[in-house]
Amino acid sequence: MAKTMLAVVKEKKAPGVALRNIPIPLPKKGELLIKVKASSICGTDISLYDWTPWAEGHIQKFPVTLGHEVVGEVLEVNSDELTDIKVGDMVSSETHIFCNNCYQCRINNRHVCENMQLFGIGGDYGGFAQYAVIPIRTSWKNTIDIPANVISAQEPLGNAVHVVSKADVAGKSVIVFGLGPVGQCVVSVAKAYGAKKVIGINRGEYRRNLAMKMGADEVYDYLPEKYKNQFEVVIETSGNAEIMNTILEAARIAGKIVFFGVPKKEASIEIGKYFINKELSAISVFGRRIWETWYQTSDLLASKKVDLAKLVTHQFKLSEFEEAMAVMKSGQCGKVVLIP
Amino acid sequence: MAKTMLAVVKEKKAPGVALRNIPIPLPKKGELLIKVKASSICGTDISLYDWTPWAEGHIQKFPVTLGHEVVGEVLEVNSDELTDIKVGDMVSSETHIFCNNCYQCRINNRHVCENMQLFGIGGDYGGFAQYAVIPIRTSWKNTIDIPANVISAQEPLGNAVHVVSKADVAGKSVIVFGLGPVGQCVVSVAKAYGAKKVIGINRGEYRRNLAMKMGADEVYDYLPEKYKNQFEVVIETSGNAEIMNTILEAARIAGKIVFFGVPKKEASIEIGKYFINKELSAISVFGRRIWETWYQTSDLLASKKVDLAKLVTHQFKLSEFEEAMAVMKSGQCGKVVLIP
Amino acid sequence: MAKTMLAVVKEKKAPGVALRNIPIPLPKKGELLIKVKASSICGTDISLYDWTPWAEGHIQKFPVTLGHEVVGEVLEVNSDELTDIKVGDMVSSETHIFCNNCYQCRINNRHVCENMQLFGIGGDYGGFAQYAVIPIRTSWKNTIDIPANVISAQEPLGNAVHVVSKADVAGKSVIVFGLGPVGQCVVSVAKAYGAKKVIGINRGEYRRNLAMKMGADEVYDYLPEKYKNQFEVVIETSGNAEIMNTILEAARIAGKIVFFGVPKKEASIEIGKYFINKELSAISVFGRRIWETWYQTSDLLASKKVDLAKLVTHQFKLSEFEEAMAVMKSGQCGKVVLIP
Amino acid sequence: MAKTMLAVVKEKKAPGVALRNIPIPLPKKGELLIKVKASSICGTDISLYDWTPWAEGHIQKFPVTLGHEVVGEVLEVNSDELTDIKVGDMVSSETHIFCNNCYQCRINNRHVCENMQLFGIGGDYGGFAQYAVIPIRTSWKNTIDIPANVISAQEPLGNAVHVVSKADVAGKSVIVFGLGPVGQCVVSVAKAYGAKKVIGINRGEYRRNLAMKMGADEVYDYLPEKYKNQFEVVIETSGNAEIMNTILEAARIAGKIVFFGVPKKEASIEIGKYFINKELSAISVFGRRIWETWYQTSDLLASKKVDLAKLVTHQFKLSEFEEAMAVMKSGQCGKVVLIP
Repeated sequence: MAKTMLAVVKEKKAPGVALRNIPIPLPKKGELLIKVKASSICGTDISLYDWTPWAEGHIQKFPVTLGHEVVGEVLEVNSDELTDIKVGDMVSSETHIFCNNCYQCRINNRHVCENMQLFGIGGDYGGFAQYAVIPIRTSWKNTIDIPANVISAQEPLGNAVHVVSKADVAGKSVIVFGLGPVGQCVVSVAKAYGAKKVIGINRGEYRRNLAMKMGADEVYDYLPEKYKNQFEVVIETSGNAEIMNTILEAARIAGKIVFFGVPKKEASIEIGKYFINKELSAISVFGRRIWETWYQTSDLLASKKVDLAKLVTHQFKLSEFEEAMAVMKSGQCGKVVLIP
Repeated sequence: MAKTMLAVVKEKKAPGVALRNIPIPLPKKGELLIKVKASSICGTDISLYDWTPWAEGHIQKFPVTLGHEVVGEVLEVNSDELTDIKVGDMVSSETHIFCNNCYQCRINNRHVCENMQLFGIGGDYGGFAQYAVIPIRTSWKNTIDIPANVISAQEPLGNAVHVVSKADVAGKSVIVFGLGPVGQCVVSVAKAYGAKKVIGINRGEYRRNLAMKMGADEVYDYLPEKYKNQFEVVIETSGNAEIMNTILEAARIAGKIVFFGVPKKEASIEIGKYFINKELSAISVFGRRIWETWYQTSDLLASKKVDLAKLVTHQFKLSEFEEAMAVMKSGQCGKVVLIP
Repeated sequence: MAKTMLAVVKEKKAPGVALRNIPIPLPKKGELLIKVKASSICGTDISLYDWTPWAEGHIQKFPVTLGHEVVGEVLEVNSDELTDIKVGDMVSSETHIFCNNCYQCRINNRHVCENMQLFGIGGDYGGFAQYAVIPIRTSWKNTIDIPANVISAQEPLGNAVHVVSKADVAGKSVIVFGLGPVGQCVVSVAKAYGAKKVIGINRGEYRRNLAMKMGADEVYDYLPEKYKNQFEVVIETSGNAEIMNTILEAARIAGKIVFFGVPKKEASIEIGKYFINKELSAISVFGRRIWETWYQTSDLLASKKVDLAKLVTHQFKLSEFEEAMAVMKSGQCGKVVLIP
Repeated sequence: MAKTMLAVVKEKKAPGVALRNIPIPLPKKGELLIKVKASSICGTDISLYDWTPWAEGHIQKFPVTLGHEVVGEVLEVNSDELTDIKVGDMVSSETHIFCNNCYQCRINNRHVCENMQLFGIGGDYGGFAQYAVIPIRTSWKNTIDIPANVISAQEPLGNAVHVVSKADVAGKSVIVFGLGPVGQCVVSVAKAYGAKKVIGINRGEYRRNLAMKMGADEVYDYLPEKYKNQFEVVIETSGNAEIMNTILEAARIAGKIVFFGVPKKEASIEIGKYFINKELSAISVFGRRIWETWYQTSDLLASKKVDLAKLVTHQFKLSEFEEAMAVMKSGQCGKVVLIP
């Protein structure tokens, strides 16, 4: 095996990244070494690339390898503990590295651990590289027969599964604001989980068209007048702070809002008129339930009810990271995948 | 019986009310005539008195009799339908007059009826008077032995019961923002329903002291630093748009917010940092479940777990309405009751 | 209009029925008169026909007209109240005639009213006839374009919708014991509401084959060994008291059982081994939520996700009731429909 | 430190136990050694003592040390992993030793692990001894100031907390069948969590009297006629297979049953009449949620809402085990504690 590898690294507090040859990391006790087969670009990676305030808050030391949506083949398992993962397995990484020792971990909310570390976002680990080290406790052993370039998108699909599971959509009318990769997956999972009707809202036409392929019944660039106060479930994945009152306006009396997209600034909301007077409820979704959501996601892929291949619209070599990022930022894409 | 009665009426689109002698109303088919025994002043009545934009949106025709928290003795039952209410019964009025025919009514959400009329708020009915007419379908027959001046506060107690029931507080840490009459009741009901600890927040000292009598474990005029991110349940009754981020900051990871107080303007909220990142949920409460909440409220009063008499700090004759309203507006009170 | 009509009546405490010409009933205040377009035979009707102990407990006075799964055209509306039903509408009847005045009705559980009367089962009303009278408060106005002979099966479909809604099947593995008409509908609704996999169990081959057409993934005549302890949701519609431990054995640890079929005798159950040790939960379903379930059922039919026409395997004239009942008792059928 | 210790051991497939001096066990990697401060006798220990069929199914190898309700001081921590437990801490043991690797463990149901081992019941560990070894992952660090002889009963209190939490009793009428130690705790926790009324049923008078001290509103030796169909929550802790229909009869329409006590034989149940016709639901409770229930239990003790000292009616030296067991079997006791 080589000693060095190509990796996408953030070297300083400024926009952009560098492609560098860096040493292949060594797995410590409780960790795996994998040969990365595919990794995909998340909206978060745009923030890190562009060096937003959010990025500023998440990376303290440099250089760091980026990339958290990753799938790879296990080359080494460094563990004294019982584990069912062995060399040759194809594993994905859960981004949220929980501590297993805090109150939330101890009451079975590991996905909102109080001492969370993040894979590929400012910590010791990262997946935009030829090799990567992952904690065993956040590794998911894939058992379904799906190509690596598609399965890397399992992690954002997991977000959607978490969103839709909490939303409880069976038999209900659903509207999805924002049709980025997670929004696209929400459309598809909502149909698979029995939603009566799924409407998608997105400004860009490319993604509206893609959503129709993912299973949307109708798509619009804004909330049509006729659809005000109509939806039992409203799912917000756009992160657009300007449209929060519109989000609430879409909900039917006694409806449920699910917040997933993180707005970049404070949102102004008319709580009385749009929330309390309709007795709405709002939930939020962070990451994926560990490991409930992964089991559900894997089941959906195995059942072919969700066709993730349709979502992967672009594929690049890892060395073409800049081109890949440009496509990702254009919004003229579904999921953009990198092959090391 | 007399032909006229004293009543508090709103005569025009402007601040203030008038005390007038008006004809005693006649119950139509499906209605009761009651002799009012006591009525209490709600925060809503302040808005109507002061003629806020909210009031503007709720009263279209004049004159109208105000007052919706009312208890009285049945003088006449005008009905062809089966009812267990008879002359001599002591009844309270549910403020929200549902239509029984819309989608929400038909799916058992009568309290958020799509064609709601309001008792004592701009409609044909009102309770700040010596006599009142109430629809039978929104009349609650009192069966417990509690003085009339206290039982009139059963309606806001019902709001609190609805809030606390939906909040699910048993064994949990609870903080209540706003210690007006509903907030006071929330404190007391949360203790009765098994909350681990109940903290109250209110700017005015009078109501902080009263909350201690109602069962609060601790009270503060603002959220103490040590209590940030600590509460499994956060109940907002203040309606203060300025403190919404503080509300969210009080919640523990995975906690639940309950919105009850209606802010008078848009609130600016940092959804990502304070809501999604802690994976909070938020519910809202409107009115009372008809009739689940009334049964629960009655049970709590019968059990003496909630002592509503402590909340009734002031009592006036109906003719002293202006003095009563002045006390109510001072915030130096619990519940203010009028005796016709 | 004629003065008399053909009707299927129970005349005495003994097996069998009689076809008689009886006076067309007159709607009292709060009732509709309909011209019956189609009615279908329920398992309950077999009990009434055969005069089981259950039947003995439900019919006290004679003669009575049988039949409760009915659809018809409104000929007359006798009401002082607000209603959206008018002459010419096509209405179905909810079997459970609630009182609207008891505790359960008042807390929004009208489908388990404490003073329940039944349509077509021993009361004043019945649908195996050319005309029928129905209380307005238990009439459902059909708005979807589905033939009358199919829509009569909407009522048992409603049972299935209620079962599957409470079972919460999205993404889960489901097994259905008993593939009578309700079991068949459960299969179809479970698929529509996003079940991962739906397995059907029935002794008779006819109904196993029918279940495959209704959407089952696999069918068996008994629980296969490999499927012990595998299902997150187990739905019991067979009413077979002998197989209750098998029902529990099918459930995965932490799974949920739904009891719908009423066993004719006491069932012997190993509560510790099969229920507590797997920490199972069990719910039961009675009738349909009024009117939540009807809205859901109507939506499913409108969406074409459930094709009820496949379930209607046999159709007879009302005058051929005995032949229809014979087919129904053979188990070699789906739904058997009568056309007056 | 001594090399040997006194321990209560099961040496063969037959009734009775032996008190032996055996070597003090050594903690392996991931385990603690504790000096036992107190241990209490569970109903399960009676089965092991008497050698019931249940015991036969749980102990395969001999000799084994019995005892699982234990509290002790940490003498040694053998671990490479991060843990907050250190020498000198006072720890209790969670009886259910989960594997952390099976499906149920991975979806956060560790308390119903598919590969469960039991502390003090046939495995490598046991607490009726002067010293004991406990897995770190099933050790609970006590932080509240409660005497050791009382805190040993925290484990059965935990069962009750789990039962009452799942039962959701706030504002509801509750009846508890069986007033053994867990039933006693259920009474007390149900009051603390806001039950409207708590009725206890037990054949023996001693425990009925004790339940009144623990907070019951009323106690009976059988279900009074007036209490049929009255309770929103029915909690079964007796494990008496003969009274299962009575259990169901106590429930109000739409009520909830909680099964905790494991019947020693099959129970005959009239599912239609008593369960489906009232549309009841039934849940079961196994062990304690790890660690949610422990946090809740600790909070309840800290709050003094539950006074566990009242439950500890008898105390013996470990060497007096036979006397302690005799009292336990008499039913004339609450919790019986052993001090090594």
